[in-house]
Amino acid sequence: MPNIIDRSVLSPVSRMRTAFFVSDGTGITAETFAHSLLTQFDTHFRQVRLPFVDSVDKAHLALRKIDETFILDGQRPIVFSTLVKTELSDIVRASHGLYMDLIQTFIEPLEQELGMKSMHTIGRSHTSADSAEYKNRIEAINFSLAHDDGQSNRNLEEADVILIGVSRSGKTPTSLFLAMQYGIKAANYPLIPDDFEREKLPGSLLPHKEKLFGLSIAADRLAEIRNERLPGSKYAMLENCRYEINEAEKIMRREGIRWMSSTTKSIEEIAATILQEIKSEQRPD
Amino acid sequence: MPNIIDRSVLSPVSRMRTAFFVSDGTGITAETFAHSLLTQFDTHFRQVRLPFVDSVDKAHLALRKIDETFILDGQRPIVFSTLVKTELSDIVRASHGLYMDLIQTFIEPLEQELGMKSMHTIGRSHTSADSAEYKNRIEAINFSLAHDDGQSNRNLEEADVILIGVSRSGKTPTSLFLAMQYGIKAANYPLIPDDFEREKLPGSLLPHKEKLFGLSIAADRLAEIRNERLPGSKYAMLENCRYEINEAEKIMRREGIRWMSSTTKSIEEIAATILQEIKSEQRPD
Repeated sequence: MPNIIDRSVLSPVSRMRTAFFVSDGTGITAETFAHSLLTQFDTHFRQVRLPFVDSVDKAHLALRKIDETFILDGQRPIVFSTLVKTELSDIVRASHGLYMDLIQTFIEPLEQELGMKSMHTIGRSHTSADSAEYKNRIEAINFSLAHDDGQSNRNLEEADVILIGVSRSGKTPTSLFLAMQYGIKAANYPLIPDDFEREKLPGSLLPHKEKLFGLSIAADRLAEIRNERLPGSKYAMLENCRYEINEAEKIMRREGIRWMSSTTKSIEEIAATILQEIKSEQRPD
Repeated sequence: MPNIIDRSVLSPVSRMRTAFFVSDGTGITAETFAHSLLTQFDTHFRQVRLPFVDSVDKAHLALRKIDETFILDGQRPIVFSTLVKTELSDIVRASHGLYMDLIQTFIEPLEQELGMKSMHTIGRSHTSADSAEYKNRIEAINFSLAHDDGQSNRNLEEADVILIGVSRSGKTPTSLFLAMQYGIKAANYPLIPDDFEREKLPGSLLPHKEKLFGLSIAADRLAEIRNERLPGSKYAMLENCRYEINEAEKIMRREGIRWMSSTTKSIEEIAATILQEIKSEQRPD
């Protein structure tokens, strides 16, 4: 995902295309989606998010900003809009930018297919703060934090999934992502030298074996990550990393625990893979 | 965001429309975006994500699944696709579903406007695990975790923003979201009764005043949240919540710290507001 701040600082404005993400809400959905379109082109864009454009006045401000940029850049800005209300999108559409309507483009065929009108209500892309779904996400974040790195065994039975693996194999960011994005209560539990000597899973995990999912990682990558953290430590030594990983994988194989390698995967990719596992488990189809 | 697991368990399949999110990658972008379209309609959808459709075989599997669902549901499924390679999208497009091409729909006008061909490369929507941008996000997550709830003052100067506020005002999830989504190093620091008696900011924050951003919250909402955590405690009493909030706001006003109320806001909305603040500060435009 683009880090707006860095980009806007790094990017020379002149002769560079500007992409606007205009939204009546946070603009995060528009930005994330539009970013995946822009990455299909081998060129850089100065990226500007215009969130909370939820009034006629703000729509006119957005329009002016886009047209000023058109003159400044000497090129048409690309305008990605998720404005839902047509009285607002009509204003911004009138700019000199290339207007891409991320909503209407699809709402119209959907209305036809579903045989109903859309609600044209603002800020629906994120669950509102008082919805059960949102509370569920916050609860999951708190759960994942409280159960990070094996901190607590309390209510472990409430976990949707328990990630296990050696230290720095990617358990923590993946757990937090699963909680934040999907409201999944993801605990994580490190496999440590004690477990390897005993050649057993931590006792507190045995009652929850069916919820366990393992992360492994290539030894050289792990050594690299650990060295950033504790340079020159035994903990970070390639040999030690290799040992821990072998032992961890041995345990997971012996216990028949599903696992994957996180080496070249982003947390989104790891999470999506885990989701499929949990899902196919809960609802075989 | 839809919680796939819950939905798929809760939703009776029969007579309910099914929406498929087909992607060559994680499908998260497609799903998040398509979900914001579906929420515009006052009806429920059974939502099925088909990630990692990155081969002709998998595309045929997706096609079969969609057509089976068409027969099962007795209605056309809605198919949102972010398949980038036309040899894959052409296969899935041939299904009985209503095919919504989230990529080609916009790639073509973009190619025209930019005067260049798109790369049609797979899985670009998330930064790959070895990119500097991705490493930056992971580093930010680790930073935000290490600096959650005032745990540490180490390297506080590295923070992009430091959230302050009374306990349970929404600092932690917002910090983690800023880190995860934008690679922003967001520390957070609680304002506690000691600070209120001294009527001063915690000393360790004074050198970083320009990075502070405050979160406040309505007293009754705070009492509600705290009561879920520590029922019947003084900590959760409405009177005490009201006192803490008043004192916290007093300090923030006196110190001239920007702040907002998190009461009715989602973490996405809070984060988007904070981003604007940091941004306009770093790059006045």
